[in-house]
Formats: sequence, C-alpha cells, structure tokens
Amino acid sequence: MAHLPPDPYESGIAPFAMDFRGGRITAVEATEACLARIAALNPKLDAFELVDAERALEAARGIDALRAAGTDLGPLMGVTLAVKDIIAVDGLPTTNGSRYPTEHLTGPEGPLIHRLKQAGCIILGKTKTVEFALGATGVNEARGTPWNPWDSSVHRFPGGSSSGSAVAVAAGLCGFALGTDTGGSIRIPASFTGLFGHKTTVGRWPTEGVFPLSPTLDSIGPLCRSAGDAALIHAVVLDEPVPMPMRLEGLRLGRPKDLFWDDLDETTRATVESALLALSAAGIEIVEIDLPEAAERARLFPSIVPAELIARLTPEGFEQARPNMDPTTAQRAAHGLTVPAVEYAAAQFRRLELEAAAAERFDGLDAWVAPSTPFTAMAMENLQYPEEAKRALLSSRNTQPANIFGICAASMPIQQFGAPLPVGLQLMAPRGQDAKLLSLALAFEPVLGTGPSPDLSGFLD
Amino acid sequence: MAHLPPDPYESGIAPFAMDFRGGRITAVEATEACLARIAALNPKLDAFELVDAERALEAARGIDALRAAGTDLGPLMGVTLAVKDIIAVDGLPTTNGSRYPTEHLTGPEGPLIHRLKQAGCIILGKTKTVEFALGATGVNEARGTPWNPWDSSVHRFPGGSSSGSAVAVAAGLCGFALGTDTGGSIRIPASFTGLFGHKTTVGRWPTEGVFPLSPTLDSIGPLCRSAGDAALIHAVVLDEPVPMPMRLEGLRLGRPKDLFWDDLDETTRATVESALLALSAAGIEIVEIDLPEAAERARLFPSIVPAELIARLTPEGFEQARPNMDPTTAQRAAHGLTVPAVEYAAAQFRRLELEAAAAERFDGLDAWVAPSTPFTAMAMENLQYPEEAKRALLSSRNTQPANIFGICAASMPIQQFGAPLPVGLQLMAPRGQDAKLLSLALAFEPVLGTGPSPDLSGFLD
Repeated sequence: MAHLPPDPYESGIAPFAMDFRGGRITAVEATEACLARIAALNPKLDAFELVDAERALEAARGIDALRAAGTDLGPLMGVTLAVKDIIAVDGLPTTNGSRYPTEHLTGPEGPLIHRLKQAGCIILGKTKTVEFALGATGVNEARGTPWNPWDSSVHRFPGGSSSGSAVAVAAGLCGFALGTDTGGSIRIPASFTGLFGHKTTVGRWPTEGVFPLSPTLDSIGPLCRSAGDAALIHAVVLDEPVPMPMRLEGLRLGRPKDLFWDDLDETTRATVESALLALSAAGIEIVEIDLPEAAERARLFPSIVPAELIARLTPEGFEQARPNMDPTTAQRAAHGLTVPAVEYAAAQFRRLELEAAAAERFDGLDAWVAPSTPFTAMAMENLQYPEEAKRALLSSRNTQPANIFGICAASMPIQQFGAPLPVGLQLMAPRGQDAKLLSLALAFEPVLGTGPSPDLSGFLD
Repeated sequence: MAHLPPDPYESGIAPFAMDFRGGRITAVEATEACLARIAALNPKLDAFELVDAERALEAARGIDALRAAGTDLGPLMGVTLAVKDIIAVDGLPTTNGSRYPTEHLTGPEGPLIHRLKQAGCIILGKTKTVEFALGATGVNEARGTPWNPWDSSVHRFPGGSSSGSAVAVAAGLCGFALGTDTGGSIRIPASFTGLFGHKTTVGRWPTEGVFPLSPTLDSIGPLCRSAGDAALIHAVVLDEPVPMPMRLEGLRLGRPKDLFWDDLDETTRATVESALLALSAAGIEIVEIDLPEAAERARLFPSIVPAELIARLTPEGFEQARPNMDPTTAQRAAHGLTVPAVEYAAAQFRRLELEAAAAERFDGLDAWVAPSTPFTAMAMENLQYPEEAKRALLSSRNTQPANIFGICAASMPIQQFGAPLPVGLQLMAPRGQDAKLLSLALAFEPVLGTGPSPDLSGFLD
C-alpha cells in the first residue's frame, strides 16, 4: 500500500490559509501532499485527465518565496486547484472530454483562470469531464469515467459532467476544483460525492476560455468542501467582500412541491426530510410552493442545448467526431441536428418567460430547497438494465430547473443525516443573488454540519 | 379640390412648441389641421390603417386645458403622433398589417406609448405597415400599400416596413410617427420619402407592446422631419437631456468601401457624394474603411428573422394565416420553417462576433456614413419585371448591417443636393451611442440642409 499523506485542505481553505500564513505548512508541502495523493489514488479514481506536477511544484516554490517576501495574495494563496478539462489553462492541452480535437473552440486561457493564478492558486492539472460536458451521470466511454470515491468495490457514477473535479476534491487530491454547470454539471457530482457545489448565475463569473456547450445556459463554479470554501472562492473571483452567514431567524424557504419530490429513492427522501427538519428546528420557516414551470426543463433542454453544441462543432465537425465519441453523448448531441429553428427560438422565448415567472415565485422567500438529485450514486453496471438506464436519465431532473430559470444554486452535502452514500440538499436563489445564496448556506452549515470523508483505502494499490 | 390647411409641424417640433406656448396655435387647431389633411389626402395616400379622430380631438382639448392651467408637459406637448400598426395603443385594434388576428402577440399598450401620452402627444391613429413588419419596399397586398407622396402620377414604394408612418409624416399628416426597424424598416421609408429616421440601439427604447418580429433585432424609433425633431423625441422618451450639436472640427467619419456602394443608381450615387463633399468642405474628415462583415447580413437575416417570426405565430398559426397573407411576405416567412436550429444558433453566435468586430471598426471614428438605400423609390409597377423585382430585394441591403452589428443608425434626407426624388444619407454609430448619433446629425443638418416637401396637389380629389 502506497504512502498517503494527509490532505492539507481537509479542514477547509480558511484553516489551511492560517496554517500557511503561520508557517506551519508551505505551498510546496501542500502541493507535494496533493501530488502524492494523486499518485496513490488517481490510478484507480481516474479523476485527472492530466497532472502538471512539475509546473505545480514550480509555482508552489514561487508562492512560498512570495510569502517569505511578505506578499499576501489573499485567502486562496497556496491553495491547489484542479481544472475541469473544458477550461483552458495556458500551456496545457484541453480535450473537452473528447478524442476529437476542439481546443480551438475553447480558446485561450480566460480571465477566471488568470484571476485565480493572481490570487496564488496552484494548478495541479485538468480533470476528467463528460464529453463536451453533455451528460449528468459522469460516464465518458471515450476518455474514461472517474470512480466515485465513496465505493471502491463498485464503480458508481461520479456524477457529471464535472466528474473528475468532484472526485478530485472528494478524495482530497486538491484544495478545490472548477466545474461548469449547464444543466446540473456542478450540483449533480457534488450531490453524488458529498461536496459543496456552487452553480453561479449565468454571466456572473467570466466564461471566456471555457468550452461553449450552450452559451444560453453555461455557468461556472467551484466544487469544494463547504459553503465556507465556496464563499472565499466567490469573493476572490469577483474581488468582492466575503459573504457572511445570515441570521437564521426570519428566513423563509420555499419547498417546491412539484417534480422535485417524485421518484426519490428512500435514502434521499429520508435524508433530505431530516435535513429540512433540522433547519425548521433551527427556526427557519419552510413553506410548500407551486413551481409547475420546473417541469418544462424536460422540453426546453433538448430544444436548446444539443443544437447549440452542434452549431459550435459545426455539423461536419460533429460527423467527424461522432465515430469516436461516447455513444450516449453522441446520440444526445445528434438530436440537435433534427431540431427546427422555430422550435429552438420558441424555446428561447419561453425560457425568458420562465425567468420572469421564477423571479415572481421567489416573492417573499429567501431561497428554494429541494433534493439535488433524486437518488444516490448508482452503480455503473446497473446501466445494463433498461429500467435503471432510464432512471439514470433523471440525474439532472432536479438541477435543470435552476438553469432554465436563470438563477443560482448550490448543492450542500447532507449524508450526515444518516445516509450510506452522499446526498445533496439543493438551495436555489434568485438570479444574481450568488452572495446571498452563499450567506444562506453559511448560515445552514452549522445546523446541517458538513459531510464525512470517504474511506479511500480501497483505492490504494 | 378639398381644402388643405397648412401642416402645423412643417417647420419642426420646436417652432410648433413655441407657437403653442405663445398661444398662436392650440392643440385642437393643430389636431384639426392634421385631421383635415388626412381627410383630404389619405384616401389616395392610404397611410393610415385607422384614424381615431374623436379621441384625438378630445385629447387635444385636454392638452389645451392643461396648457391654460399653466401645465407644461415638455416639448412634445400638443404634438400629433401616428403609430405604426404593430404597436399597441389602448382602445385601438392592432392588425400588425395582417388579416390574420395576432393582437395577442403584440400585447397591451407598453411604456413607450404611455410615456408619449404623458408628454402630451396626441395620437391620431395607426399607420399601415408591411405585414408583420417583414418587408422593405412597403408593399402589403393584404391590407394595402401607401403611396409615396413624392409622385402622385405613379405609385412608388413608400419603403417599409414602416410605410404608413413615413407617408404620414412626409405628407404632413402628423407631427411625427413611430416606426420599428428590424432590418431597415425605419431608415428605408425615411430614405424613400425624404425624412429623418432614427433606428435606436436594440433595447434602448422599450419594446413591450410592440409586435415581436425578431426580438434579436427589433428596435423602435421615430420618423420625423429633422434631426432636431428626433433629438427632442429621443430626450422625451428616455427622460434625458436633449442632445446638442457637436462641433464639426475634428470629427472623423468612416466610409465603408464594401457593399454599400455597389449597384447604386446614378441619382443616389451623385447625391450622396455631393452631400459627403459638403461635409468634407465643412471640415469633417471622411476616411475609407474596410467593413467586410457587412456582407454577412445576407446570410444571417434569413437564418434568424423568419424562424423567430414563426416561433411567435407558431407553425400552426402561420399555416392558418398564410392563405390571406401578402404572398411575398408569406414566402419570406415560410423560409423560417426550413431553417435548422443549428443554423439559427450558429447565426446567433456569429452575430455576437460581428457585434464585437463592428465595435472595433469604430475605433478612432465618430460614425460611419453610407447611402441609406441603393436607389430612390421604385415604381410599384416595375415589380412585374423580374430584373427590377430582383433589384427591389436590395432595398434593405444597406440598412441590415446596422441591425446585425447591434448599433444605432439614422437616415438623413439629402434630396436637396439635386435629386428628383428623396435620397437618404445613412449615419451609423456604436451600440448605445444614440445621443451622440443625434448630436452628429444635428451638427450636419446646417451643412446639409433639410429636404424639400413634396407637392401634394395630385393627391387631392
């Protein structure tokens, strides 16, 4: 069994930052610990598409020298970062999860990565993603599917499309990771691996240098250990004050009674109910609300997303890519070829109406709560059973509404309420209210607690 | 021959406002003059879809009473207004230029009309439009094509789609008129009838209560007698200071050498060149610029506009409407049924790139200048000749680029440089710089002069 140094960020980014500033750990030590954990665990976890060990260590030496010189780059200084491989980083290739070359569509490194580098983050490498980020289970037959670190005996869905980013954080391979979320691609893997995932409002974080799956719906955000970590990351990215916890008294949450609660597995239902009971007991009012518009996600997504993907790939490019693509992703994308412009345009017009409808339904409420996913991470092998394969399609049912509503959302880990596998509690807040969403999550965290860490021994050689 | 009272707004809105405040003319007198001119001229001009004489007079009495009470509603107080019949006005039907009922798509009266009423405008009625505003010549076989007032012997194109609004102003039937411009529908009729037409930047004026031809490209604006009138109207609509003329010294205009100068008729070429010479002589620098992106309008318009129209009508609605539609408009709209979503989405992505490209090409320039249309108003009967019918399709060639670039633009009347029929000089300015566009036009107006008025005697019974 390989040696496994402790995860330097296990207690969160703020404690690490204190240790780093106090000289109790250097950026090189933290980076070496991450790289050693990657070396030991990644062969089976398969979270990384590419590990950039040498440059990471070089950057860490630079960060340590800056600290020695008295330079403080802020709370993310010396924090290691893993980047979903649909986001460009100077000097590293971008696969977009495909065997077909599409780096030109992702473009050069954008302002988000630039900002995180300026803040002293150390980039460890690129993480696995569903091909072109188009898929919720995390499966990628073209370039590999990471293992969910919560079960070394059975290969379970990591959740997608930010599969490798979630697995890397859940297994303690990095300080935090970047994901993207077009229909749930941050919140689903956060839910399946027991992390905090923040889907920002579209346009709130810069999307240049990110593969454009659907410019209409694409958003970015972190996969991390807690609301506290997410609040620091959000503040650094936007150069804004760090969100602070809200007072629990007087908060009012809407619990949509439509859709989100259908066909849950028993673990998910019981765990989410327990978490909501804990919030109620802490003085938060939770009221049932109607949200019939949420169901329209089933019609709008296929009318918008595949066509936008193929518009970027070009139909010719897609036909070239298709033979080597993940067959499920290819089939989903191919639907875009059949959508008429009239259907697409009507879906866009309807989406704008739904944005307005959602804004009204937040009236008098601080946020909405719902399960992030209808079930815990399924075993990959279950996909062979048609009933289970059909069920897997529901992975994004509870997350897509936030995308069509144009709002922000997060998944909080609540496995600690007695589940054998991670379960996510989804928080949804109005468009642009990302800081408030994080303030709410910060307030809930002491009530809900943070999730446990997985036993990784089964992933060691 | 019917009695034809003088047009109270012939010298412009500011002189009228002085007369009105000085008690030399009342709103009732001005409205009665307009209604008498409509009664005398509209039977042949066919500018109006509906004249709301009674309510106009009632409103005029109210305005006069307010003035008597010492209330000043601003520079548009007592100014009569004609509204393109794709814009909702409380209490009046909206045909959208069609025999098929689509009033529900236009919706209730929006904030633009509301604002103009608050400013004391008197609405005379609704003006003819190309069906669903989809056409540049002004022809509407479903509900009638207004006559261009510059030729009573031959029915010439009024220009479209804001055909009736242009004819109403050019014939002195109202103080000003509202039009909409998705591909040139304000600037083309302004060019063909010798008016000032201002196509605002998309989103700058509120579009609620306006038939949505293409939410991507739709914009609104006035058809009026001069830049001075347009500046007052813009200031009132946005509740902003009235734009003032810029100094001519140091101004630098780009003259795109691509596309805009191809296939001009000799009148248009000579007149525009003379006008530009006058501007040069006044100290303005005019430089040739490359603008190859302008040509992409030919590809992008058919990929975007017809599909957006049918998405609103719904394909079923369109099939119902079609038998009674103007055949040319119907054929153009029907193309939308055949466009794939991938083509539409790609066109939208390209349009965003072109917006950025255009912004760069304004670097170091105050505006661009070009002919508004490639030719003067053609005779309707010429449409029977295939060569001429094909040429008529070029009516919007010089205006559509401003729409795809997302910028603002105006057409200034320059017939006074020696043309037998109206010719338009197009000014194009960067996105959102509508006030600067008007300041430029105000500076050019003393150099260029304003156009003559048509001899209307041939339109009287």
